[in-house]
Amino acid sequence: MVSDRLERLSSTLRAKGIEHALLSSFISLRYFTGYQATVELEPSPMTPLLGAFLWTRGDPPILYLADMEPGEGVNSSIRRESFASYIIERPMFAVEDLGAKLAARLKPLPKSQVAIEWEEIPAALLDVLRSECPHLEFRNLKDELSTFRMVKDAEEIETMRAALALCDLGQQIAKRHATAGRTEIEIFTALRQGMELREGGRVPIIADVVSGPRTALTGGPPSARRLEGGELLIVDLVPRHLGYWGDSCNTRCAGEPKPEHKKAFDGLAAVLADAIAKVRPGLRACDLDKLVRTGVEKLGGHYPHHTGHGLGISWHEEPRIVPYSTIPLESNMIIALEPGMYFEGQWGMRLEYVLRVTETGAELLSKYRHGL
Amino acid sequence: MVSDRLERLSSTLRAKGIEHALLSSFISLRYFTGYQATVELEPSPMTPLLGAFLWTRGDPPILYLADMEPGEGVNSSIRRESFASYIIERPMFAVEDLGAKLAARLKPLPKSQVAIEWEEIPAALLDVLRSECPHLEFRNLKDELSTFRMVKDAEEIETMRAALALCDLGQQIAKRHATAGRTEIEIFTALRQGMELREGGRVPIIADVVSGPRTALTGGPPSARRLEGGELLIVDLVPRHLGYWGDSCNTRCAGEPKPEHKKAFDGLAAVLADAIAKVRPGLRACDLDKLVRTGVEKLGGHYPHHTGHGLGISWHEEPRIVPYSTIPLESNMIIALEPGMYFEGQWGMRLEYVLRVTETGAELLSKYRHGL
Repeated sequence: MVSDRLERLSSTLRAKGIEHALLSSFISLRYFTGYQATVELEPSPMTPLLGAFLWTRGDPPILYLADMEPGEGVNSSIRRESFASYIIERPMFAVEDLGAKLAARLKPLPKSQVAIEWEEIPAALLDVLRSECPHLEFRNLKDELSTFRMVKDAEEIETMRAALALCDLGQQIAKRHATAGRTEIEIFTALRQGMELREGGRVPIIADVVSGPRTALTGGPPSARRLEGGELLIVDLVPRHLGYWGDSCNTRCAGEPKPEHKKAFDGLAAVLADAIAKVRPGLRACDLDKLVRTGVEKLGGHYPHHTGHGLGISWHEEPRIVPYSTIPLESNMIIALEPGMYFEGQWGMRLEYVLRVTETGAELLSKYRHGL
Repeated sequence: MVSDRLERLSSTLRAKGIEHALLSSFISLRYFTGYQATVELEPSPMTPLLGAFLWTRGDPPILYLADMEPGEGVNSSIRRESFASYIIERPMFAVEDLGAKLAARLKPLPKSQVAIEWEEIPAALLDVLRSECPHLEFRNLKDELSTFRMVKDAEEIETMRAALALCDLGQQIAKRHATAGRTEIEIFTALRQGMELREGGRVPIIADVVSGPRTALTGGPPSARRLEGGELLIVDLVPRHLGYWGDSCNTRCAGEPKPEHKKAFDGLAAVLADAIAKVRPGLRACDLDKLVRTGVEKLGGHYPHHTGHGLGISWHEEPRIVPYSTIPLESNMIIALEPGMYFEGQWGMRLEYVLRVTETGAELLSKYRHGL
């Protein structure tokens, strides 16, 4: 599939009159080379960037990886080269080394244009390339790349099914543990443990786990707060599998729900179900946003956030389901829909499913079921 | 303590003839403002940088934070301003917004110099500032900042004690679970759960958990591999507490150790103890490296990595205990020492403690004890 993606990149560049590309965000590295960067730690103290992908017209594509990077997942069709990140024989010089190696490849090119990710590439690296290669013009590809991965290919859809199955498992465990007396962090560690044992390895995860009045804040990390009977618990789980993110959110009550919570839950679930039923190619993101937002307002609720978003290599990407976006849905887009309602200082609730847009409607990829 | 650090920054800049500073790495943000960025997820899809710290001579320092960032830990003496990262009313424009806000502050300055982190600042942001403020010269502060945080202040030492107490707990749990039949990931999830319950919240953690022949690789993430009787297990735990990292490594045997493992363990522990006994202000990093490295070689072993490193806001920083470094140890440096020995295709072992350099020697900050 990497070859198809490179084909599309080539066409996109050609349409803009750009010959070459040097991409350095780890999202682009994953998409165009297969490389799965670790994300569970701070930026490396050894290098400000883990790699760079150089694609010059007519040449085989090259992935430059920091020499401490194992390069997990890199497609066999991609040539790999390394640059020095941390060696014990001399002070670190990652940017200098990568800069010199890239410049050596770029210098012989004729006067031409090179697409870059201007907001991601470190200034030091771009300055070196500009200085060494004054015959090249570096052009930002941000707009094109922001919508480039909206429609998922078969390989991506399979990977995301697995990421979403981790969500299903996490939500099932959360449901069992959402009882009075448990703390948010107890619930979180239990569900993450379940996911990591299932995965047979570490699972990076973004998560909201908030209970009681904290639910009114829309989200937050799990704390030592203890659930009391009748309180709500929002569990929003975003785990990563092979470089792709799943997403999911359920709201659960510890014990017997109050009538107002029950009513809100049923209403929210109905709005979400109605929206999913209306999803189809051609529906614009803003219209879907409006449909859901007004549905929740009719229930007497309100949410300050988006109605949903695309996901994949990034946990938040186009198509964003927001008031300003006129992007029409297309078959094989994968989107999360997550309406909620929040009452300041009191309580909040959110329900989220992930779906795939099909030729005629939507396939629900989330297999767990909401339950208060 | 933030005020002391800013004083030192001011002196450092003055010595270089630089008037102002614009720092954008999250390490500098933590150090100079107290801001604890989340590190357990990929770079934000909404903004390539979470914040920027602007310090113009004579003015109150300002932290610009992405508007979705809660800004945990920011010192009350630091003025906070926000820039747009993600709003639902229009497409994202974080770099444009931050760039415009910074330019508005920088434009009125007289012709002068501004220190930057050239390898960290996104090219797009620096290009905007250069274009809007042609009267300013932006100068890289990399060398000065790389050694700036070596000596820890009292607040840092206290925070690191707490981070290291998490290591102690994790190592104790790992020791209990390092039995034949357990998988690496089972051991990892158990110890992390213990740490997070103790912390009452999430604990970002970098970890090597490798068993059997995998120990020869020096490290790696926990897998579904099951420990067999007599096999070794390396557990290297690097958890983060309030923005500071602990570090620790033990090697454990599942069941009865083989004589060669016992001998190696005792030898390695003795080399480490001997090195700790010799630590004192004035000892150069390269000499400490040599002491430990030759000690291990006398045992018939070898390690391809550093002997140790400083740690703090970064899990790997100066003073690095490596062959090339002539940096002399100073009181209140905190360093990890981690000699090991590895036999390709067979097995490996590593032992690590963290210590504080004192006026006369070393204080062992790691409280857990190695045990095979």
